[in-house]
Amino acid sequence: MSKARPITDHSRLSINTATTRAQWGLAEAIDGYARAGVSGISPWRDQIAEMGLAKAARAIEEAGLTVTGVCRGGMFPWGSEQARIEMLDDNRRAIEEAATLKAQCLVLVVGGLPAGSKDLAGAHAMVEEAISILLLEARAAGVPMAIEPLHPMYAADRACVNTMRHALDICERAGEGIGVAVDVYHVWWDTELQSQIRRAGRERLLAFHICDWLVPTRDLLLDRGMMGDGVIDIPLLRGWVEAAGYDGFHEVEIFSELDWWKRDPDEVVKICQDRCLTVV
Amino acid sequence: MSKARPITDHSRLSINTATTRAQWGLAEAIDGYARAGVSGISPWRDQIAEMGLAKAARAIEEAGLTVTGVCRGGMFPWGSEQARIEMLDDNRRAIEEAATLKAQCLVLVVGGLPAGSKDLAGAHAMVEEAISILLLEARAAGVPMAIEPLHPMYAADRACVNTMRHALDICERAGEGIGVAVDVYHVWWDTELQSQIRRAGRERLLAFHICDWLVPTRDLLLDRGMMGDGVIDIPLLRGWVEAAGYDGFHEVEIFSELDWWKRDPDEVVKICQDRCLTVV
Repeated sequence: MSKARPITDHSRLSINTATTRAQWGLAEAIDGYARAGVSGISPWRDQIAEMGLAKAARAIEEAGLTVTGVCRGGMFPWGSEQARIEMLDDNRRAIEEAATLKAQCLVLVVGGLPAGSKDLAGAHAMVEEAISILLLEARAAGVPMAIEPLHPMYAADRACVNTMRHALDICERAGEGIGVAVDVYHVWWDTELQSQIRRAGRERLLAFHICDWLVPTRDLLLDRGMMGDGVIDIPLLRGWVEAAGYDGFHEVEIFSELDWWKRDPDEVVKICQDRCLTVV
Repeated sequence: MSKARPITDHSRLSINTATTRAQWGLAEAIDGYARAGVSGISPWRDQIAEMGLAKAARAIEEAGLTVTGVCRGGMFPWGSEQARIEMLDDNRRAIEEAATLKAQCLVLVVGGLPAGSKDLAGAHAMVEEAISILLLEARAAGVPMAIEPLHPMYAADRACVNTMRHALDICERAGEGIGVAVDVYHVWWDTELQSQIRRAGRERLLAFHICDWLVPTRDLLLDRGMMGDGVIDIPLLRGWVEAAGYDGFHEVEIFSELDWWKRDPDEVVKICQDRCLTVV
């Protein structure tokens, strides 16, 4: 399988605000990304709340940025009826926010095991039940929901959907209006990745997230690498999603307490842009 | 699926010497495990080398311990022809050692990407090429080879075979004399685990390793938990391997720099025994 053609401009670059969250709030990120000529942004809900939804929507529109996703809905499995009610309410607010921001999708981090539980199959069932309820509202709001399979090292505490195969099985049972966010960090190791991307097709491929897997990885959560600094063959994976019909943004999402969160955020944005032309 | 019946004695307990490696060398582990009434042992090759192979074989036999595995062969993918030759030689010595110790299997940690490589498919091909060469010698020596699918967080640097499905695909292409070591730590998250265990069947299920996945996990390598302290439903998984015909040992393997390696090793062994009667 030949790799994708080189990227020659930044028109498909989006930056997830997690990448600069230690340095910039949402208002600063909007300004900073737009100032550098970045085309897309994917904000986190805590930052949206801090800025205020209406103000954030206005600023993003004035800056001319496309919202490639809102992070995040999900965290579905519940330990009590009260928790279930709160989870559904919170996800309804997430759908509203994504609609207000005209987001291309609401990213779903589906959640892990409820506290004290070892019932993985039960958690899987809760994920599907919650999705079946919320999908009706997401469709009505015109917000595509994107299941993001997370790396299996997060199965217990963040997401019990860890492969494209599982995510797409859920999508097929759920019907229209739901797809997947492919983050190379989470799925690069999977022998089924190419075939499952093909299976997903253009309709289910809602987002493509990029960063890199560092060797060694010093922290399970906050040691993701900048594209090119790790072992993921990003052009190969980009070629696979493009061959399946994906023509959307490339969203950079880097959690890096040990490195990138300590740097000048303008420099981080510049390096994201540079790397897109050389190693993505 | 109902869980396995409770364990009522220690006759199937084996301890992997990694569990006490910070406290005991191999000679001490042999004495300590036998003194406590443990039936099986799984030694690491660096410890065998330190004690001397002949001496280790004699001590294990005199102690009446079953060698449930030798850790480890593998680390197959090579970066140069010289590295390939050395890798094959080292694996041939591992097969000899396993034969000398009358081990039930040689555990294969297949290796990750060669330094500087991003070619995952290439690494997969190297794993299969090396196995096809070495399997002939392992069969001749009467040593079953057991591919241990490692958790995907080790795909880059320890093992690029990360699921039962992939391991069994390799086994089927390789033929007889090779199977899998199922370690709950590495595979508990996999939605295909039950069906792949069934697919493996008695013939390919060569070892069953137990420990637990802690929440939070503070280190990618050295923070495994004692059975019962984490989120893995071990009786459920034991039920699956037993339903598939497995009637071998339950091998405890805990890498725990942060906890169990700091404790009195006699206490660690005693707790392994106790937990087998209550949470395994």
